[in-house]
Amino acid sequence: MKKVLVLHGPNLNLLGTREPEIYGSATLADINNLLKEDADKAGIGINFKQSNYEGELIEAIQQSSDYDYIILNAGAFTHYSIAIRDAIASVRTPVIEVHLSNIHKREAFRSNSVIAPVAVGQICGLGVGSYIAALQYIITELTGAKKNGK
Amino acid sequence: MKKVLVLHGPNLNLLGTREPEIYGSATLADINNLLKEDADKAGIGINFKQSNYEGELIEAIQQSSDYDYIILNAGAFTHYSIAIRDAIASVRTPVIEVHLSNIHKREAFRSNSVIAPVAVGQICGLGVGSYIAALQYIITELTGAKKNGK
Amino acid sequence: MKKVLVLHGPNLNLLGTREPEIYGSATLADINNLLKEDADKAGIGINFKQSNYEGELIEAIQQSSDYDYIILNAGAFTHYSIAIRDAIASVRTPVIEVHLSNIHKREAFRSNSVIAPVAVGQICGLGVGSYIAALQYIITELTGAKKNGK
Amino acid sequence: MKKVLVLHGPNLNLLGTREPEIYGSATLADINNLLKEDADKAGIGINFKQSNYEGELIEAIQQSSDYDYIILNAGAFTHYSIAIRDAIASVRTPVIEVHLSNIHKREAFRSNSVIAPVAVGQICGLGVGSYIAALQYIITELTGAKKNGK
Amino acid sequence: MKKVLVLHGPNLNLLGTREPEIYGSATLADINNLLKEDADKAGIGINFKQSNYEGELIEAIQQSSDYDYIILNAGAFTHYSIAIRDAIASVRTPVIEVHLSNIHKREAFRSNSVIAPVAVGQICGLGVGSYIAALQYIITELTGAKKNGK
Amino acid sequence: MKKVLVLHGPNLNLLGTREPEIYGSATLADINNLLKEDADKAGIGINFKQSNYEGELIEAIQQSSDYDYIILNAGAFTHYSIAIRDAIASVRTPVIEVHLSNIHKREAFRSNSVIAPVAVGQICGLGVGSYIAALQYIITELTGAKKNGK
Amino acid sequence: MKKVLVLHGPNLNLLGTREPEIYGSATLADINNLLKEDADKAGIGINFKQSNYEGELIEAIQQSSDYDYIILNAGAFTHYSIAIRDAIASVRTPVIEVHLSNIHKREAFRSNSVIAPVAVGQICGLGVGSYIAALQYIITELTGAKKNGK
Amino acid sequence: MKKVLVLHGPNLNLLGTREPEIYGSATLADINNLLKEDADKAGIGINFKQSNYEGELIEAIQQSSDYDYIILNAGAFTHYSIAIRDAIASVRTPVIEVHLSNIHKREAFRSNSVIAPVAVGQICGLGVGSYIAALQYIITELTGAKKNGK
Amino acid sequence: MKKVLVLHGPNLNLLGTREPEIYGSATLADINNLLKEDADKAGIGINFKQSNYEGELIEAIQQSSDYDYIILNAGAFTHYSIAIRDAIASVRTPVIEVHLSNIHKREAFRSNSVIAPVAVGQICGLGVGSYIAALQYIITELTGAKKNGK
Amino acid sequence: MKKVLVLHGPNLNLLGTREPEIYGSATLADINNLLKEDADKAGIGINFKQSNYEGELIEAIQQSSDYDYIILNAGAFTHYSIAIRDAIASVRTPVIEVHLSNIHKREAFRSNSVIAPVAVGQICGLGVGSYIAALQYIITELTGAKKNGK
Amino acid sequence: MKKVLVLHGPNLNLLGTREPEIYGSATLADINNLLKEDADKAGIGINFKQSNYEGELIEAIQQSSDYDYIILNAGAFTHYSIAIRDAIASVRTPVIEVHLSNIHKREAFRSNSVIAPVAVGQICGLGVGSYIAALQYIITELTGAKKNGK
Amino acid sequence: MKKVLVLHGPNLNLLGTREPEIYGSATLADINNLLKEDADKAGIGINFKQSNYEGELIEAIQQSSDYDYIILNAGAFTHYSIAIRDAIASVRTPVIEVHLSNIHKREAFRSNSVIAPVAVGQICGLGVGSYIAALQYIITELTGAKKNGK
Repeated sequence: MKKVLVLHGPNLNLLGTREPEIYGSATLADINNLLKEDADKAGIGINFKQSNYEGELIEAIQQSSDYDYIILNAGAFTHYSIAIRDAIASVRTPVIEVHLSNIHKREAFRSNSVIAPVAVGQICGLGVGSYIAALQYIITELTGAKKNGK
Repeated sequence: MKKVLVLHGPNLNLLGTREPEIYGSATLADINNLLKEDADKAGIGINFKQSNYEGELIEAIQQSSDYDYIILNAGAFTHYSIAIRDAIASVRTPVIEVHLSNIHKREAFRSNSVIAPVAVGQICGLGVGSYIAALQYIITELTGAKKNGK
Repeated sequence: MKKVLVLHGPNLNLLGTREPEIYGSATLADINNLLKEDADKAGIGINFKQSNYEGELIEAIQQSSDYDYIILNAGAFTHYSIAIRDAIASVRTPVIEVHLSNIHKREAFRSNSVIAPVAVGQICGLGVGSYIAALQYIITELTGAKKNGK
Repeated sequence: MKKVLVLHGPNLNLLGTREPEIYGSATLADINNLLKEDADKAGIGINFKQSNYEGELIEAIQQSSDYDYIILNAGAFTHYSIAIRDAIASVRTPVIEVHLSNIHKREAFRSNSVIAPVAVGQICGLGVGSYIAALQYIITELTGAKKNGK
Repeated sequence: MKKVLVLHGPNLNLLGTREPEIYGSATLADINNLLKEDADKAGIGINFKQSNYEGELIEAIQQSSDYDYIILNAGAFTHYSIAIRDAIASVRTPVIEVHLSNIHKREAFRSNSVIAPVAVGQICGLGVGSYIAALQYIITELTGAKKNGK
Repeated sequence: MKKVLVLHGPNLNLLGTREPEIYGSATLADINNLLKEDADKAGIGINFKQSNYEGELIEAIQQSSDYDYIILNAGAFTHYSIAIRDAIASVRTPVIEVHLSNIHKREAFRSNSVIAPVAVGQICGLGVGSYIAALQYIITELTGAKKNGK
Repeated sequence: MKKVLVLHGPNLNLLGTREPEIYGSATLADINNLLKEDADKAGIGINFKQSNYEGELIEAIQQSSDYDYIILNAGAFTHYSIAIRDAIASVRTPVIEVHLSNIHKREAFRSNSVIAPVAVGQICGLGVGSYIAALQYIITELTGAKKNGK
Repeated sequence: MKKVLVLHGPNLNLLGTREPEIYGSATLADINNLLKEDADKAGIGINFKQSNYEGELIEAIQQSSDYDYIILNAGAFTHYSIAIRDAIASVRTPVIEVHLSNIHKREAFRSNSVIAPVAVGQICGLGVGSYIAALQYIITELTGAKKNGK
Repeated sequence: MKKVLVLHGPNLNLLGTREPEIYGSATLADINNLLKEDADKAGIGINFKQSNYEGELIEAIQQSSDYDYIILNAGAFTHYSIAIRDAIASVRTPVIEVHLSNIHKREAFRSNSVIAPVAVGQICGLGVGSYIAALQYIITELTGAKKNGK
Repeated sequence: MKKVLVLHGPNLNLLGTREPEIYGSATLADINNLLKEDADKAGIGINFKQSNYEGELIEAIQQSSDYDYIILNAGAFTHYSIAIRDAIASVRTPVIEVHLSNIHKREAFRSNSVIAPVAVGQICGLGVGSYIAALQYIITELTGAKKNGK
Repeated sequence: MKKVLVLHGPNLNLLGTREPEIYGSATLADINNLLKEDADKAGIGINFKQSNYEGELIEAIQQSSDYDYIILNAGAFTHYSIAIRDAIASVRTPVIEVHLSNIHKREAFRSNSVIAPVAVGQICGLGVGSYIAALQYIITELTGAKKNGK
Repeated sequence: MKKVLVLHGPNLNLLGTREPEIYGSATLADINNLLKEDADKAGIGINFKQSNYEGELIEAIQQSSDYDYIILNAGAFTHYSIAIRDAIASVRTPVIEVHLSNIHKREAFRSNSVIAPVAVGQICGLGVGSYIAALQYIITELTGAKKNGK
């Protein structure tokens, strides 16, 4: 069975109450449930982890060899954690980077991702839809059809 | 009936033969067909336009009031066409920006999009999957469920 | 008879509906009518052209030898079209650069004009008044008094 | 009766002899007379002040509550006097920024105005015509017609 | 028969009258005639195209598969048209970039070419001689001797 | 008799073995021979000098008053030797700057030439053809025809 | 009862022995005791936490809903932890940023705080006095008088 | 008797009416009264001066040898008056820099203080509380306890 | 007995499998064994610690007072962890910074070390040899000869 | 009789007590006396003025038409007073810029002079000798010999 | 027999007297003797050369084909001699870059090495120990064991 | 007997013919003669050296221990020769930096001197007078009076 790991970075545990005008009103549990539903439907395993510790995210990535894909919302670490970048580069599991908000519409420093150059691709600005789009892409990649044709 | 406009910018008419190690082997017709299929299935109208002229793309955006969404791959114009940015800001139709390649893995100038700040969001690096993910997001937005919850 | 050419750049055809909090509610026809009135009163010929194509604006400038002055609102091209700058430098017709909005109050990239160094001068932030001020200056220059004394 | 204050910054008292190839041969008195004429004709009061002291200009702006508009040529202070910028932001009187020369044709540091973001608009490069255009705009704004429609 | 395409960018149609102290007094027809003469002598076909439209130049490059080489003077587009750069990268026809003037002796922005990294090489500052040198290089490459030995 | 001086800068004595994937397999003697052949044919004298010493190149330029042109490949000095730049500016002999490789395709620092602003022009990326093109241009300039028309 | 949380960032546990010429000779316990005394006197609860882990500080901020104010000395994290910045922005508890040393007198990178834009204000350079001043401000805010009048 | 000098820079005489959403509704007299009260209570002399003239502020600092401390809100001069910085460095009286608003939350240029490197410390964002905190620090320093321990 | 602490930063636990073309095929255990051997031979104690947590590395440095030297490969933290820099500056134990790869041959951001200014020195690019060289230097320093003579 | 004006900028009235390790122990009166002595000996008139007001220095320069030369130590205004720069450019009196300290050995911002480009030349780092050297140069220029031969 | 070349750049002939607080008190002869001793012990040949001429260092590198390794302290040339960089890239002999002082603790320009990207690695800050460490690494590489495992 | 060394850098041997509008018409011999005259009059020895070789200038500085002062016009090396800077820092002989032209009136790169931070002071723009002023300063320093009082 194919498996996907969804990693949520710092402060994402506050979703729902945290700056809802930027991040929306869905909680992290809401997001995870939506993703689980889609994964189940596609017959793909899915696990979730949130951490406010850079080190814990690094180790989750390091130990991802069982997974076929990682969906990573690195939160604020996106903009400076070269250590997470290096963790991604150190493993074979491909990573799709997602963001709830459109990082290009906000403070200048947010449009720079140190992680993007080692990810497969990046999806931002679609709210929960960013996660869902990443998962749909992965499902297509993992389940035969392979019509993404990158 | 809801309608989506897919706009392809300069040099995308060469897809399939153009730097296939970067852009993949699918032709523009292939992409359009895949999207058409998904749109048909969802009962959504879809139209396509490719142009190598900035002015033509601007006018396509200006005349998009019939459409509920635009999927825009502005190609190289992404990096300098403030005129296209202004066209997007001038109309009400929301725009999803897509790129076949991961623009953050290439020359430094490609990671900057002058269009992103006026788009809803950006998807890159997923090959044809970038277009498909944009369309799936739009279908979800337009067809009731509204589970993207941005 | 002295003649003035008024050139409007990309997206200015949308005036009236386009971001009215920035650009005001006057349409392009409204502006042209106001200018025509003033020109008629001064016994000066006036023509108008709007284009979303950089190439078309370049050629309008190139073919301006019949005109005594150009009033140019290059829109977004202001910020990157070195080709329009070169067209201005290539002809003898003097150009007054105008902007409806105060380009210094907006995104940082908008305060830079690649055209300004080859224009006679620049007027911004006065709404339709920017065009009118340019025309008044030209009328003074062309009709004897010559009291501007630059 | 509506009133306009014209403020001239440092070194403008030398007009006529100061770098005439840049600033023209009109003296400050000449400029003031031309403006007075136009203001009289429009039935608008007008006062003039020149100072080489930043502090004196700041206080003139602070004490402008009797005026309906300020025309300000801040001279060299344009490029660094955040204190004048703050004075403008501190009062309700709207300010039109003017320059005799085209500040974009000269040394790079001259194209930056720290004042422009708090002014209504900016006019440069038209010689005495820059002041006249500002006054004409103000007359239009103050005397009913209100056709500038910003 | 081997064939060469000579592409002239914006404002080059004005050669002869345009800033002759920079660009010389030869017209575009003069340049084309000189090149035709040399090409004829070498038994090589040659075609010419000038356009002020970025899109038209892009398409000329896209449709160059019949040609063995392109000589491209992109004019002002040299400094910002990533779309032309991408067109060059999208085709197999090798491109020699030429400029009449020495772009390093002029405004700072002119010394940067976004096209150069995808061209074979660049020749500037030799007036019409820049075109001729490019053609001579091509003739050598195409007609056996192959002594350029890059 | 007209005379040309060909100056080769640091490390060019290693041509043929030095990074052949960048600089080609021709040795410096090969290049000099090719140029000698062309110069002989045109009835023009030609001399060659290579040095790894900035001071020696400076003095060769200083002592070039007998020559009608210098072809200079300053090698790595291109990017920082203001002293060579000043030597060129100090003499009347015109200089054509050449490079074997396309300096715009390599490390960013290589695309900047401190010498170019005082040279007549620059040719790069054509391999040995860069030198040959420079010489052909010079021959045309020196032998009557004068068809380069810069 | 009103409550204040004092958060000390990395390396502040070494106070007293760490670079005393910069940070003074008071230990962290000394500082906490001084603050406790003042808080007790004002009838305000106060708690203290020091951590060298960014994640632990983030979570302390996330769980601060019981507190009326946070006094935060983020130590070196001040200069790069966007994750701490986001934690502050995610909660309602207002934060006063403090530093023992004058961060503007030291290495250039220390004068930049990524946290300051989301804090109420910043106090630096007063040694232990920076903490005390923050607490005094908070006491005034929380205990009726409200004379700070920001 | 110990004495403190409070210096208010340009435009601070407008407090109360000047951009109250940024600077609050307290007038300068209100602030001075609050400070006088605290100083009286501590048995410390206090004097106040406001000026819109850089020169007058410089001379006030130069003539501060009778004072034990200066509280300085240099207003806009904070960002460019190296002359005030030098005045501070020229005298022995220590200076505490204060700002009503949080200068890090506003335009980018406001977060840079040319004065801070020669001040003892900086307090910003606490409204009138910034002044009060500075005075409390000074009182502690001057009245024996010396518990700030910088 | 003299003692050395070897600290390995994030992702170094993956050595051997992580990007072997950059980091080599030796595992962390291999490196530690080689160092242990050399230390034993020199009669010097040696301990090892690897962590993916910045906080844990900070505390290891803080608790290093028993050690005579630290060999630190901070991995990706090298480029942004000012907190680790401050930890080093806070203790007396001298630190030698090492890197397996040549950090100057890779992405631009890797050539900057925020730690280097507080280290004794830096060794990079020698693979495991970087660690060994550091240890040899330390052995020389600690065992009498003292011939390094820095 | 030839005349020289010596202008001292802000904080120079404090010489002798102001940072003597940088500016030396001579007072302003000492400097003026030394210069007076030299001027008397050469039969040249000399006057002195110090001001902490930018406006007063501007006006002293504006009113310098009786003088043959100005020696200007603009103090901190050197680094930002474009208004003083413009005053110099507005008059015919040539200006020699002097500094007591070596402005290139201090904070980075001090090595930039906005005045230098409109001065004849600049002398720094020679203490009082900077003024004396300027005066000696002027004496040579004014008294026949004219051996400076610039 | 394996051989090593030790190259010392400009001003290193002054070691022992030159800024001893930075470079230590060992003379160049002392360093060479220490290295000779170690090389002899390892049965490896070693030669030394110091030059203040960039050209001479370039040629020493060019003629190093007999050597198995170069230890290079390029002194000040480290920061700008692209010609030395190119010499290193032009030969097969691997180079270890060394510095006596920690170049990251000094002026900002010293932390940049234009040579490092073409060297095997870099060692700095260990005084004479930098050279010794380089030699030890080379001995290990050349004498079988090969335990550096880069 | 006190002695002064005058060092002239690259291209200064061409003085008189080299860009006379910038450097004047005096030859190097003329300058040396003028200086010799002044030195003789003051009873001070003086020697001269010009070189186009950086290495030769470095060694002249290294061997200057017999001299009491160096007057150095490093020509173009001023802007990049850190090796000359290091040579100056390596010896005890104080250096006065001179330039014939006003380096602040020319290309931007010329206003930066890498040598100035290690010189006593800098004189520029006074033509031959720059050298003479330096010598007069030195004479004053060396011959008792010592009135420069730096």
